[in-house]
Amino acid sequence: MMAPCSPRFKAIAMDLDGTVYNGSKAVQGAAEAVAELRATGLEVLFCTNNSTKTGKQISDKLCRMGIPCTADMIYTSGDAAADCIRKMGSPRTYVMGSDVLKHSISAVSEITNVPEDAKALAVGFDPTVDYEKITFGVRAALATEKIVFCNEDAVFKKEDGKIYPGPGAVTAAIRACSKREPDAVAGKPSVYMMNSIENRTGLEAEEILVVGDSFDTDIMFAKNCGTVGILVGEKVPGIFAANNISEIPQLALKFGTSDCL
Amino acid sequence: MMAPCSPRFKAIAMDLDGTVYNGSKAVQGAAEAVAELRATGLEVLFCTNNSTKTGKQISDKLCRMGIPCTADMIYTSGDAAADCIRKMGSPRTYVMGSDVLKHSISAVSEITNVPEDAKALAVGFDPTVDYEKITFGVRAALATEKIVFCNEDAVFKKEDGKIYPGPGAVTAAIRACSKREPDAVAGKPSVYMMNSIENRTGLEAEEILVVGDSFDTDIMFAKNCGTVGILVGEKVPGIFAANNISEIPQLALKFGTSDCL
Repeated sequence: MMAPCSPRFKAIAMDLDGTVYNGSKAVQGAAEAVAELRATGLEVLFCTNNSTKTGKQISDKLCRMGIPCTADMIYTSGDAAADCIRKMGSPRTYVMGSDVLKHSISAVSEITNVPEDAKALAVGFDPTVDYEKITFGVRAALATEKIVFCNEDAVFKKEDGKIYPGPGAVTAAIRACSKREPDAVAGKPSVYMMNSIENRTGLEAEEILVVGDSFDTDIMFAKNCGTVGILVGEKVPGIFAANNISEIPQLALKFGTSDCL
Repeated sequence: MMAPCSPRFKAIAMDLDGTVYNGSKAVQGAAEAVAELRATGLEVLFCTNNSTKTGKQISDKLCRMGIPCTADMIYTSGDAAADCIRKMGSPRTYVMGSDVLKHSISAVSEITNVPEDAKALAVGFDPTVDYEKITFGVRAALATEKIVFCNEDAVFKKEDGKIYPGPGAVTAAIRACSKREPDAVAGKPSVYMMNSIENRTGLEAEEILVVGDSFDTDIMFAKNCGTVGILVGEKVPGIFAANNISEIPQLALKFGTSDCL
């Protein structure tokens, strides 16, 4: 077991899809890397822009992949959106998104099914979206005081190797039709996601190392929050990079040790 | 019958929904105004961003409302989109939109149902749009050489008085997910629509007076094409305005007469 002297980072906020797993398959070396990071004394948190799964569903999945985990280690963009709604004073909310998102929001605020009666609109990913749902969402966007998007990811790849539109398809439709900007975009790369982590862990953003496979979400998330991000599997000039997740423990330790010099 | 001396305008491009009719109901005075305009020698054309109806369907509707009309007097954004595809050399096209739009495009180009095989993507309004259709549209947008939008109207009101998302909901989704700009937006306020009118009538844009109830589409259409627009039912500083369609013949005549002074 390695024990860094006064490490710069106390926790790692690790992306999930594309970093720890790809759909239903664990990334090779992920379980070992997480165990090694924990052995250095680092708290490992998992951060995802997926708002269609609960923390419990995701932690169960990680456990099945050999990564011991509890629901409170998971941060979803749905959780972050609920935090935003709570900070806005828990206005009555129309939810355009998954049942899981509805459940998350209902923990902090009253939910309404009447778009015109909403004081807030929360928008997350929904693969069953259709014209009627967009219609209701647009009406809510035109009527509400506050608009919160879980995240605006444009596309993602499924295990079939094909491209699918992300929640950015629907948030773009809401923006265009209502001619309104959201009051908050909760998920990565927004600082709201980090605020949720800070609130739950008591840590500061600069004590948290961000790790992920997407420049636009994970690395920009680190930058927006004033901390360090490591990009896994891709090299971008000026960005700390790892070839794969197995290299993360050594890199994390290096950051910790260099601060001791 | 009034006969203006050397009128500035030879034709009127008149908007339909909100100007000549509201849904299934004719606007009061519309039939009389069109008859009066024709009596002055002006050719009356009808211009709509609706790409879900054929020229024949629309001209039949106008006839039923007491406005004698043939299909070749109607210009739809679907026709304009087909013109764009034809000008692009009739590339094989994936159509995301109504069956009517598919029919319009199939008159000028081969249609494919495989998004990845398309050389062009045409996007129009489709009230049956859903996640699967958006998925196919995004894949086509990522694969094609050319992207043509019929129009990008944000919202419209139906006869129930409620607001519905226009084609701008889907075009915004395609823009956001593909991170691509369209090569052409065919309908109003784009000059492509005017090019279609010029091609079919042999007139120049400046010989055509535009009339409509929307600043963003009709009046901007006139401005973009370097001609004059009259806004019906609303006053905007610096814009020629009519309280209702019944005032249009007098205004059109005024433009004609003042040019004779």
